[in-house]
Amino acid sequence: MGAECRERISLLRERMQREGIDAVLIPTADYHNSEYVADYFKTREFFTGFTGSAGTCIVTKEEACLWTDGRYFVQAERELEGSGVRLMRMMEPGVPTTQEYLEEVLPEGAVLAFDGRCVTDAAGSDLEEKLSGREILFRADLDPAEGIWTDRPAMPVSKAEILDVCYAGVSAVQKLGALREEMKKSGCAAYVSSRLDDNMWLLNIRGADVECNPVALSHLYLDQERFVLFIQEDAVTEALSEYIASCGGEILPYGDFAAFLGTVTPAGKVMYDPDGLGYSAALALCERLRTVRRHSPVQGMKAVKNETELQNLRGCYLRDSAALCSFIYWLKNTADLSAETEYTAAMKLDGLRAEIEDFRGLSFPTISAYGPNAAMMHYEAGPEDAAKLQPEAMLLVDSGGQYLSGTTDVTRTMALGPVSDEMRLHYTLTAVGNLQLMDAVFLHGCTGRAIDILSREPLWQVGIDYKCGTGHGIGYYLNVHENPPNIRWRYAPGMREDVIEPGMIVSDEPGVYLQDRYGIRIETILECVEKETNGDGTFLAFRPLTLVPLDRELLMPEKLTPRTREVLNAYHERVYREVAPLLPPEEAAWLREQTLPL
Amino acid sequence: MGAECRERISLLRERMQREGIDAVLIPTADYHNSEYVADYFKTREFFTGFTGSAGTCIVTKEEACLWTDGRYFVQAERELEGSGVRLMRMMEPGVPTTQEYLEEVLPEGAVLAFDGRCVTDAAGSDLEEKLSGREILFRADLDPAEGIWTDRPAMPVSKAEILDVCYAGVSAVQKLGALREEMKKSGCAAYVSSRLDDNMWLLNIRGADVECNPVALSHLYLDQERFVLFIQEDAVTEALSEYIASCGGEILPYGDFAAFLGTVTPAGKVMYDPDGLGYSAALALCERLRTVRRHSPVQGMKAVKNETELQNLRGCYLRDSAALCSFIYWLKNTADLSAETEYTAAMKLDGLRAEIEDFRGLSFPTISAYGPNAAMMHYEAGPEDAAKLQPEAMLLVDSGGQYLSGTTDVTRTMALGPVSDEMRLHYTLTAVGNLQLMDAVFLHGCTGRAIDILSREPLWQVGIDYKCGTGHGIGYYLNVHENPPNIRWRYAPGMREDVIEPGMIVSDEPGVYLQDRYGIRIETILECVEKETNGDGTFLAFRPLTLVPLDRELLMPEKLTPRTREVLNAYHERVYREVAPLLPPEEAAWLREQTLPL
Repeated sequence: MGAECRERISLLRERMQREGIDAVLIPTADYHNSEYVADYFKTREFFTGFTGSAGTCIVTKEEACLWTDGRYFVQAERELEGSGVRLMRMMEPGVPTTQEYLEEVLPEGAVLAFDGRCVTDAAGSDLEEKLSGREILFRADLDPAEGIWTDRPAMPVSKAEILDVCYAGVSAVQKLGALREEMKKSGCAAYVSSRLDDNMWLLNIRGADVECNPVALSHLYLDQERFVLFIQEDAVTEALSEYIASCGGEILPYGDFAAFLGTVTPAGKVMYDPDGLGYSAALALCERLRTVRRHSPVQGMKAVKNETELQNLRGCYLRDSAALCSFIYWLKNTADLSAETEYTAAMKLDGLRAEIEDFRGLSFPTISAYGPNAAMMHYEAGPEDAAKLQPEAMLLVDSGGQYLSGTTDVTRTMALGPVSDEMRLHYTLTAVGNLQLMDAVFLHGCTGRAIDILSREPLWQVGIDYKCGTGHGIGYYLNVHENPPNIRWRYAPGMREDVIEPGMIVSDEPGVYLQDRYGIRIETILECVEKETNGDGTFLAFRPLTLVPLDRELLMPEKLTPRTREVLNAYHERVYREVAPLLPPEEAAWLREQTLPL
Repeated sequence: MGAECRERISLLRERMQREGIDAVLIPTADYHNSEYVADYFKTREFFTGFTGSAGTCIVTKEEACLWTDGRYFVQAERELEGSGVRLMRMMEPGVPTTQEYLEEVLPEGAVLAFDGRCVTDAAGSDLEEKLSGREILFRADLDPAEGIWTDRPAMPVSKAEILDVCYAGVSAVQKLGALREEMKKSGCAAYVSSRLDDNMWLLNIRGADVECNPVALSHLYLDQERFVLFIQEDAVTEALSEYIASCGGEILPYGDFAAFLGTVTPAGKVMYDPDGLGYSAALALCERLRTVRRHSPVQGMKAVKNETELQNLRGCYLRDSAALCSFIYWLKNTADLSAETEYTAAMKLDGLRAEIEDFRGLSFPTISAYGPNAAMMHYEAGPEDAAKLQPEAMLLVDSGGQYLSGTTDVTRTMALGPVSDEMRLHYTLTAVGNLQLMDAVFLHGCTGRAIDILSREPLWQVGIDYKCGTGHGIGYYLNVHENPPNIRWRYAPGMREDVIEPGMIVSDEPGVYLQDRYGIRIETILECVEKETNGDGTFLAFRPLTLVPLDRELLMPEKLTPRTREVLNAYHERVYREVAPLLPPEEAAWLREQTLPL
């Protein structure tokens, strides 16, 4: 792969030479700032060989660099081998940001090229500002893959489906009404969005254009009178046409979005989220119209699950947890480990999920990482390169499903046989953090920054940090990563930092990642609930949605605090009470043992 | 007092009537945004009767309102009685901010008057923006007390003194050099500041113009060539003149500041902190010059104590702690409680501090609050109205001194006799929070928001919140409240939220405040130190500067967590080891008992 990438980059450099371009910026992005992108958009992977879900490549005449975050350091190092691409470890001391790098390497008057559809307005504007002193010329019309990626996959398209209100809880018409109220409050006449999950949620539709994300490639325009859904023609069914019309909307071809923005004349200001609209689209708007740039109100609305969604989710997580319990039972009791690999184990789990009635697919490719591979946070084993399992050390499995009743995400780390005391200590400290956050009580008004340390402190006490946030929001039969909520101890500039509200659901996933040795993660999804309101304010707490036991073989009960031991025992008791009825008798009996008080 | 205030407000309303003013805004402020203000500036107190250190009054034709924060709700309610002034409890649900209130009550085209020297540029600009839709006319030249406050005290003035570098650690010339570097980095040619403690720190001078704050009323102008200190003529000694000249500076009269700003012509942009410059002064600058508004770099520099300051502080806190230990010994063993009041107890403690060699005064009026009075966070008892002590319930004492070797601040709550189990539980939960923060380990990069919950969580778990931050920074022989650092779970908009750095010192002061019942606060000052740097980053921790035992009569050892019990035992052992040598034998013997392992 390394050699192919070298060749591709050299072809790109030839074009840069011909067209007088000094640097090309290649983000990981479709036209929608999606976290996961369809193959058509995997230009950054095409040039670097790095398959992780997050990263930015910059190619200059002299070098090619890839920026990615702590989840991917180990993986990126391996995948970049031979490509000549230099790994830039984001947030590590001394490592410049992409902007700082460009500021450093680009001479005055240099030309920086990128695809302005694949760069958000936020990122593009930021770049403009940071480089404003240097008279850099921006060329936002370059698709770096053009002419080089000859076997580029087609743009994905699937039939859009309508999500019944028995799943969505609130009709699209009501949601549109609420958004229009928000627009009025902000003094805006129109709203424009290219964010796929926002658009899906707002209209109660779903698609299948991105692997694991039930979204349809689309843009949305809304004002007080009308709304327009821009969507690929092949995605439109008769039912969809009728449905959109019945909501008071119209459908236009996906490709007409740019032209539409160049001509539409709303009765006032246009609201858009600089993170949810492309740089080119925003330029087109701002040239002609007054705009208000703000965090998407739809993201805040979508994050607070309604009562129907919550009820569906509780059942969904229960069934999903039962599948994972069956998987762990199989792994611990009936699997011939030496005949299994990370990949076959993942297949086994995926198969158990697929049996669940309203299963629609995985919410992300199952991470099944054995031994040292688990130190890579987002490792994905293929059938060929998967490690063989053995009756020792630990297997980390991070997985989830898409269901009509919700989207799940859960991680458990399991001992497959003898483990070291250090592994057990690290697992136990991870569990303490996980349980402390689960047990948190906090005043309404807290953002994720105020509570992150509950999960992280036991590891910080021993000089260990996990290089990612503690928790993310999760869509309802939508993207597995949503923000808000967002539990982290620091936020990148511009990142939204919302107050945690009752009805939000959030992951709680501390971990230990020791390169070339092992990885541990415990991820439980929590529902935020109101605990009490008194003269001091409204106190919130969490209630676990995930109901899967922690691994007793990995726990050192004496290293749990008295309080976390209580919390764990109560959690395990609930796991048994609720999950056992869904399991065959021998699995239920096993679960009883796994959930006895410690 | 209430009736007098009514009369004063009615005189103000007459003037408003005459001059066509619809509302008058009266903040708690001198011309320097000082937290504590000299009597000359106590206009808000003059009109409302409320003596607390924080509050804003707005007088309209129809009503007069006072905004203050949670520390003062109980006290303000009492002091406002009979004045007709309505108490607005800041941050409580449904209570408008001053801006929201003005937006609500002022008609289009109304005239809002205030003293533009007493309102910061930040507050004034904010107000402008918030009211921008309503065509409110600002009159920034009204001193509301003029013509009404006939016996107004004189503007305070005292001789300024020079702080030797053996105390300050770094010379003014070095500090000015560092600031000039910062200015260059921000592309600024000049810097203007009206913040007194910033100016004192930068020039290594001190004054005595504000009670308990060793500051001289002053403004500062600095560019790459010169600096000008604006200070009252009576504050200037020959030594000061020579010293300022030797640092390359000049002295101009205090009152010349406004005129100077109207004529100075720096070689580029002027940097100022909108929280550290008056609205009128900033207006004068912005009319003529390009400006950069940013948080004061001096505050960040001042917050990180240098090695000399830290060494001085460690000794200072040790001696100050010994005085407090002697006080507690007296209170618990030799005082005839029924003959004492809150006030006489405070006098006793103040006297013990005054015996310390380099004592220069109190860092704030000692808070000695018995029984229900301790529910008022910043209660101050006078000789007349002080409550009598009795051999039961709790006495809260929050106190500190100004020394050449530093500024101290410490709170301990003591049982004077039998106490209820609820008091002991609440004291113990407060102690757990206090000890958890003391024991914190956290990555460099955390702001106070990320660690506040360590101190607060034990109380949140039982539905109790203290309505203030957990910790504030402290000056070096300067103001007892500095920011940064600032440990709180949420920040008001615009409030600076800095990363906590090694060398910062910060208070750790959780508490329980039950109106009309009792109050508990445990405040220990912590020094931030580097614990270790490894591949995961730089981990920081705290080391207590305050060395005074917690009250064993109030602790329920079984409610401490195993970890906080260890932390407390280690702390107590250190208290004994370091403080006992400074005490007479009978007090040292008592301290031994108080510090035995629990």
